[in-house]
Amino acid sequence: MRSTMQETPLNISTLLAFGSSVYSRSRIHTVTADGLRTATFADLGARAAQLAHALRDDLGVRGDDRVATFMWNNVEHLEAYVAVPSMGAVLHTLNIRLYPDQLTYIADHAEDKVVLVDGSLIPLLARVLPGFGTVEHVVVVGDGDPAPLAAAGKAVHRYEDLLAGKPTSYDWPAVPETDAAAMCYTSGTTGNPKGVVYSHRSIYLHSMQVAMPQSFGLTEANRILTIVPMFHAMAWGIPYAALLTGATLVMPDRFLQAPALVRAIEESGADFAGAVPTIWNDVLHHLDAHGGDISTLKRAVVGGSAVPPALMSAFEERYGMRIIHAWGMTETSPLGCVSHPPAGTEGEEAFAYRVTQGRFPAGVQARLAGPDGTIVPNDGEAVGELEVRGPWITGAYYRDEDPERFHDGWLRTGDVGTITGDGYLTLTDRAKDVIKSGGEWISSVELENHLMAHPAVAEATVVAVPDPRWQERPLAAVVLREGHTAAAAELSEYLSGLIPKWQLPERWTYLKEVPKTSVGKFDKKEVRRAYADGELEVTVL
Amino acid sequence: MRSTMQETPLNISTLLAFGSSVYSRSRIHTVTADGLRTATFADLGARAAQLAHALRDDLGVRGDDRVATFMWNNVEHLEAYVAVPSMGAVLHTLNIRLYPDQLTYIADHAEDKVVLVDGSLIPLLARVLPGFGTVEHVVVVGDGDPAPLAAAGKAVHRYEDLLAGKPTSYDWPAVPETDAAAMCYTSGTTGNPKGVVYSHRSIYLHSMQVAMPQSFGLTEANRILTIVPMFHAMAWGIPYAALLTGATLVMPDRFLQAPALVRAIEESGADFAGAVPTIWNDVLHHLDAHGGDISTLKRAVVGGSAVPPALMSAFEERYGMRIIHAWGMTETSPLGCVSHPPAGTEGEEAFAYRVTQGRFPAGVQARLAGPDGTIVPNDGEAVGELEVRGPWITGAYYRDEDPERFHDGWLRTGDVGTITGDGYLTLTDRAKDVIKSGGEWISSVELENHLMAHPAVAEATVVAVPDPRWQERPLAAVVLREGHTAAAAELSEYLSGLIPKWQLPERWTYLKEVPKTSVGKFDKKEVRRAYADGELEVTVL
Repeated sequence: MRSTMQETPLNISTLLAFGSSVYSRSRIHTVTADGLRTATFADLGARAAQLAHALRDDLGVRGDDRVATFMWNNVEHLEAYVAVPSMGAVLHTLNIRLYPDQLTYIADHAEDKVVLVDGSLIPLLARVLPGFGTVEHVVVVGDGDPAPLAAAGKAVHRYEDLLAGKPTSYDWPAVPETDAAAMCYTSGTTGNPKGVVYSHRSIYLHSMQVAMPQSFGLTEANRILTIVPMFHAMAWGIPYAALLTGATLVMPDRFLQAPALVRAIEESGADFAGAVPTIWNDVLHHLDAHGGDISTLKRAVVGGSAVPPALMSAFEERYGMRIIHAWGMTETSPLGCVSHPPAGTEGEEAFAYRVTQGRFPAGVQARLAGPDGTIVPNDGEAVGELEVRGPWITGAYYRDEDPERFHDGWLRTGDVGTITGDGYLTLTDRAKDVIKSGGEWISSVELENHLMAHPAVAEATVVAVPDPRWQERPLAAVVLREGHTAAAAELSEYLSGLIPKWQLPERWTYLKEVPKTSVGKFDKKEVRRAYADGELEVTVL
Repeated sequence: MRSTMQETPLNISTLLAFGSSVYSRSRIHTVTADGLRTATFADLGARAAQLAHALRDDLGVRGDDRVATFMWNNVEHLEAYVAVPSMGAVLHTLNIRLYPDQLTYIADHAEDKVVLVDGSLIPLLARVLPGFGTVEHVVVVGDGDPAPLAAAGKAVHRYEDLLAGKPTSYDWPAVPETDAAAMCYTSGTTGNPKGVVYSHRSIYLHSMQVAMPQSFGLTEANRILTIVPMFHAMAWGIPYAALLTGATLVMPDRFLQAPALVRAIEESGADFAGAVPTIWNDVLHHLDAHGGDISTLKRAVVGGSAVPPALMSAFEERYGMRIIHAWGMTETSPLGCVSHPPAGTEGEEAFAYRVTQGRFPAGVQARLAGPDGTIVPNDGEAVGELEVRGPWITGAYYRDEDPERFHDGWLRTGDVGTITGDGYLTLTDRAKDVIKSGGEWISSVELENHLMAHPAVAEATVVAVPDPRWQERPLAAVVLREGHTAAAAELSEYLSGLIPKWQLPERWTYLKEVPKTSVGKFDKKEVRRAYADGELEVTVL
């Protein structure tokens, strides 16, 4: 039986028309070297229309042509966020921090036709632009010498010249909601980046979820400092959620150092923010050392990697700011779970919930797949790889078969942990780092944390090595503190009081230091290679 | 270009699976003569599964069979709300307050197969049941003598007998989101009731909107007294929104008198409620006369008809409860707009916004059609009939062509008013009551309000009468206060200081009293008839 409901698509032009009229007075502040420059949502609507006219009439953007951005968080980037999908084209946010060959790969793979670039990023783009085979036009936002771009053989335009005189309204097409709206590539540590293509529907639904109280709880009264880059997982959906709720946006542009962020909070009165833990760590140290008034800032959503509980406590106790832990990934739009404690909990009990990755909303179904691929219960005990499903979760990668990443239509996240009966996710390991021993999983992170708590140990990493009987077993690689000794037998004895006996490593090695990746994480791959190549001196207990 | 997003349907079984697991400890309180009886959301999930098994295996419910309810607000009604759509069947909430011939009409028109009835409503149902041609089974919830139902020739069952021993889980089918989930008939004052069929998608999206801060702003911490009947526009979507957010529900069952409602608030600690203005008027008088502690109740959404500003002030000043004005109709799921003042407004300025019908969310596009059908601007001045469009707005009536109610795919609401540039709706008239004079509209309500403010006037109604030159002109029908006189010329002179000259009525008549409808409203149709039939003595100025 058919319903009688209207078949109205969920799309970006609806968000734009809504936000720019009903919340016409809401503001977008962009940080500059001389303070904030400010536009209203009404301005956003008018300029998005001008941009769409320019892209169509001057640059020949048609159908689902890809329009890329190579930009910081600023009002012009937001104009592209809304204009490009609303006109039916596809926004591709280039991550300016990718390696040059990755950038070339993704611009070609996505078949970008136009690139919008911030003046301050011209030198960075110029280095890779000659390799962007499909790009015809480059549009420079703001100042900056465009010569290096023209040298790459592309038509170069000034953003403001293109917009000048264009009509301030546009007859946005009725784009079907399942059509592509935007795309973003994930930067895996191995292989080529993989493209995720968001639909109008997924972005619309995700925006509603972001605004809901069980997620970020946004209203017209909020002033959101959007630190998380717009080229990273759509800035966690905050720009679109602002249109839906009328929340004011504060865009830091390229001014991402702690002193500049504190100044932006002081100047804008931001009461909400979103950024990764590293940023908050810097801000905390800056505040502690140099002072600053962040009293307007009541809440910050922090994700991208696990938040140290000490960081949460420090901001709450010293600066009255509550950190809300969240989890997500490019493939999940990115929300994800958000760690609000259950209603009625307080104090330490509440804090214990807040340091987990949080609870999923109804739009993200979650389950755990155990070592043999069967689904294990959500009981807070059983460990498995997190798999997710839902209307804003990717079910594929763009033009890139990778069936290993999907399981009966669910996305395999590569994260390992537990889920409680009431839905709280706690992640412990990356799937590639757990040790699969005889059909059971051993958490390398748990063993490492225990070892590093031993007084004689400076650093420790635990990796899986092949074992004829158990398939894999743990190898403990330990760096001792200067002047300390601790034999393998002693450390094993110490661990045996903390973990089940069957998880105790038989193989031990001592290193001068643990090899690290370029971003400072333990390089487990290198430890495994050294073991396989017989370069390590190993004690077997 | 296709997106890579998963094609996961938005449907009721997802809400049910989510709410009954993640919010398993949230509660549903049902008022009884002896206090509250309480179930958890986990119980709801288990019993909904049992109900689905019973409907399928014992009563033969298949495909999109219609399962009707004839019930108060209670936990069993909620079980039907979630079980029936989740199994793929269609819930039809029978409005127990319809006239008998309307009930017979809608049960037959919807082709109901099963009716669930509260024991306390058996006598009311028994009067109409013999005429329910398609109904095969009646299921009695709670106690009550089923004999009168069996006398109608239907198979009669006890709800608890059917559920006993059934499995507490059910393999809910993957219902496409555009399939019918529930239906509700509107009771127009003329003609047969008209059916609106909600889809899984419309209910899901509507639930998200209800939960958003710009609408009701619901969380797990809320305790919602759901006074608005579940047979009336799906209880404003509150039951489904509770599953999405974990909010506790307080269901008043048949105990809807003011003393019982106050007791339910005291016993449940309800902090949020939804009901029509009449109910709040009764509660206010009861509190003022007899006392009562409603200090937990912070907010109430009030809709169904315009809220008198005095009622809003009284609750706020005397009982610390904020009334939030809202507008919607069965055809709009029903949300509609909600009247939160813009961020940053306070005091009288904020109150002026709060007494409007409020602002629409992004999911409800709104426009005004002027007297000649062209769209007039949203500028707070231009008057037109409100037309709405969106994913939870009906685009038709069930098996009932009524093209007059739609305009290029937009629903004509039959309400007339203005919309400001920032989206606030103010309704002034029903479309059928405005006077269409030479391509302009005259508000009969505005003329009536002015006339009734004159010291000599007890009551006044203004109706449209045919006019050879202007198509329609106003006829003022006045009832004078005892011992007062006021000639037509004097009243016209009085009005001329208050309204534009071209709106002044030429035709005046004096009545002993204004004829009223069965619910106490001015019966304009009767006045028009009396004029047309020459029964009124008319002065023409």
